[in-house]
Amino acid sequence: MTKHVVIQTDFGRCDGAVSAMYGVALTVNPSLRIFDLTHEIPQYNIWEASYRLFQTTIYWPEETVFVSVVDPGVGSDRRSVVAKTNDNKYIVTPDNGTLTHLIESVGIEAVRLIDEKVNRLPRSGESYTFHGRDVYAYTAARLASEIISFDEVGPKLNVNQIIELPRPNPKISEGEIVGHVDILDERFGNLWTNIDRYFFKQAQINYGDFLEVTIENNGREVYKNKVVFGRSFADSHLGEPLLYVNSVDNIGVAINQGSFAKAYRISTGVNWKIKVQRS
Amino acid sequence: MTKHVVIQTDFGRCDGAVSAMYGVALTVNPSLRIFDLTHEIPQYNIWEASYRLFQTTIYWPEETVFVSVVDPGVGSDRRSVVAKTNDNKYIVTPDNGTLTHLIESVGIEAVRLIDEKVNRLPRSGESYTFHGRDVYAYTAARLASEIISFDEVGPKLNVNQIIELPRPNPKISEGEIVGHVDILDERFGNLWTNIDRYFFKQAQINYGDFLEVTIENNGREVYKNKVVFGRSFADSHLGEPLLYVNSVDNIGVAINQGSFAKAYRISTGVNWKIKVQRS
Amino acid sequence: MTKHVVIQTDFGRCDGAVSAMYGVALTVNPSLRIFDLTHEIPQYNIWEASYRLFQTTIYWPEETVFVSVVDPGVGSDRRSVVAKTNDNKYIVTPDNGTLTHLIESVGIEAVRLIDEKVNRLPRSGESYTFHGRDVYAYTAARLASEIISFDEVGPKLNVNQIIELPRPNPKISEGEIVGHVDILDERFGNLWTNIDRYFFKQAQINYGDFLEVTIENNGREVYKNKVVFGRSFADSHLGEPLLYVNSVDNIGVAINQGSFAKAYRISTGVNWKIKVQRS
Repeated sequence: MTKHVVIQTDFGRCDGAVSAMYGVALTVNPSLRIFDLTHEIPQYNIWEASYRLFQTTIYWPEETVFVSVVDPGVGSDRRSVVAKTNDNKYIVTPDNGTLTHLIESVGIEAVRLIDEKVNRLPRSGESYTFHGRDVYAYTAARLASEIISFDEVGPKLNVNQIIELPRPNPKISEGEIVGHVDILDERFGNLWTNIDRYFFKQAQINYGDFLEVTIENNGREVYKNKVVFGRSFADSHLGEPLLYVNSVDNIGVAINQGSFAKAYRISTGVNWKIKVQRS
Repeated sequence: MTKHVVIQTDFGRCDGAVSAMYGVALTVNPSLRIFDLTHEIPQYNIWEASYRLFQTTIYWPEETVFVSVVDPGVGSDRRSVVAKTNDNKYIVTPDNGTLTHLIESVGIEAVRLIDEKVNRLPRSGESYTFHGRDVYAYTAARLASEIISFDEVGPKLNVNQIIELPRPNPKISEGEIVGHVDILDERFGNLWTNIDRYFFKQAQINYGDFLEVTIENNGREVYKNKVVFGRSFADSHLGEPLLYVNSVDNIGVAINQGSFAKAYRISTGVNWKIKVQRS
Repeated sequence: MTKHVVIQTDFGRCDGAVSAMYGVALTVNPSLRIFDLTHEIPQYNIWEASYRLFQTTIYWPEETVFVSVVDPGVGSDRRSVVAKTNDNKYIVTPDNGTLTHLIESVGIEAVRLIDEKVNRLPRSGESYTFHGRDVYAYTAARLASEIISFDEVGPKLNVNQIIELPRPNPKISEGEIVGHVDILDERFGNLWTNIDRYFFKQAQINYGDFLEVTIENNGREVYKNKVVFGRSFADSHLGEPLLYVNSVDNIGVAINQGSFAKAYRISTGVNWKIKVQRS
């Protein structure tokens, strides 16, 4: 059986771009099975593309070929690569930071530069603005269909050559855990931090404990309050804030059936610091 | 052949949640065929989730396994169930009212409580906020792939134990039909009532007849006008209101190429009463 | 193997309409492979439906069956047809102008009127507002599954009977190329003109050349400036405008990582004229 292909872009689904990518892949192999990760990555937001791969790839079967096209540098000399993760998934992507979260979680085993002399849709030579269709979908389909092997993608690169976005690790010290808001659970308004639930275990924090949560943006205090650590939203009242273990095993901050992010105008990134202390 | 799986959520498609559900299901069975109903159910809106199942399940092949995850009570003691409809479809869902419209249309033949000791993604034990991935997608994939039978979902429940949202029936009396606005055809701004077209037959209303339509919200009159009953939008002028038989055989109210809902700020639910009289 | 089916509508994905179409097609043939082009065509916008077919169909395998449902005239006497393109794709659509761009690009080889006495979902007779489900999805599934041949769709029509929207050709004269803004690359705010890149070749315009670009709406000048012709966005600075060859081999106008359309409030259609001159 051929491997699955899963596509992520910042193209949206309002025009024909994603469908053209599907068409190219299915022309390579009409029985290929293709799926969507999301096409709603905010335009040019490499960080979020990186996070969504981290959030999902581990749930897919081994050998799945992911395509990620958030590519502000299309047409520049940024490299196009295929990475192979330690849990045996492939990621076809511009080398622009999109692999950041995967490097730090499952890890990357090997990476190849896409040789566009071989791995590019025939007769697409005059268009320089849609590598998602002409290079990435085409290469992913050929890799998933075993028309090319991983080695035939192109020359080997060193894993430590991959471009990474800066991303500090969370820290635990006497009575205090410090991390940042890594991403929003956009639709529900929850903050997802980079603080692993094992930090809470290590600090012997238990469900039901009240903790002092401070959120700062570039040093400016944005939120400071006592918040309960609940097993799930059902452990807080409607409208009440809570800390919880989110679906990727990190600490989240929510308002039960409200939007924490909107309530306090909180955004994401390493400048959005969160501090949790025993109160 | 395995059965199809069709997924509905209120997650949107902007992050990785739905894709993680796909991944879990395809890890259970790589050749499973999975489809989307919609992921744009307004957050926590169980009523609309219930309606969308009613609108679509009858058009799918027998044995199709539907998953519906609109689950404000995730992590509480609300039950997780699989219902089998009288037309032989399966619905995997929290038992929170999501089955309301199906109970009253095709009807439910049997219902089983999901036994999470068996039917839960291995090693997902510490996350209590994403049963869509860890319980529902996993169980649906196993059921659709015949790894478990319907009986192996878990203990049998009584069909009359299923939680139902209150939903009064439409009424016909001397020269008057009364119902409510069940849902909006959101994108086109049409009102979809709970009045079956057979009520119009019974009242001997024919295409071309003009009828007096009154819409009230909690007793306050919001709209009152004479409206033609047309076979389709083409039977009215651009911008003209009409009554018509919608695609689920109920009476709809529209403005031809306009939005009736926006024009008169009409929303949905049993408090949005509609009355149709011969004028 | 059965042919692929690709669906385009203006229904959005927020309700059950598209899923009901899938269900009908999969009831005809449970192993049918169905894909989305887009469901975000602005309501009733036949022009954009026509453009999206032009943008994508050529990338799909031969014999693919496309369904396009942008159908403001549903229920009127507008014809329902299946067109066969010169590159051997099928388009199932209302005959309302949706085929305009395909006629002028790949061309239509033959067209058949859908005979609804045969090609209509059984027992769907009383609903006149959802031909997408009852006629088009049903017919496409039967055609793709070879239950019916192209000839069995219904009576033959003359190709020159197909309804076309007015669409003037671009013109080249002494030192000047004139066209119109055919569509927006909505998400990125780029203008896509109807000026083929061969016009630039013919005028011996090279990458790096600066050109005077004038955009007029109904004779009113909206934009006039010198703009570089770049191979890709990477050839301009952040925020700088550029001319480029877009992914369908026409000339586009962009602001690197900005929205040209929003910056100058530019929309689409034959009344949005663009003029390119050597400066």
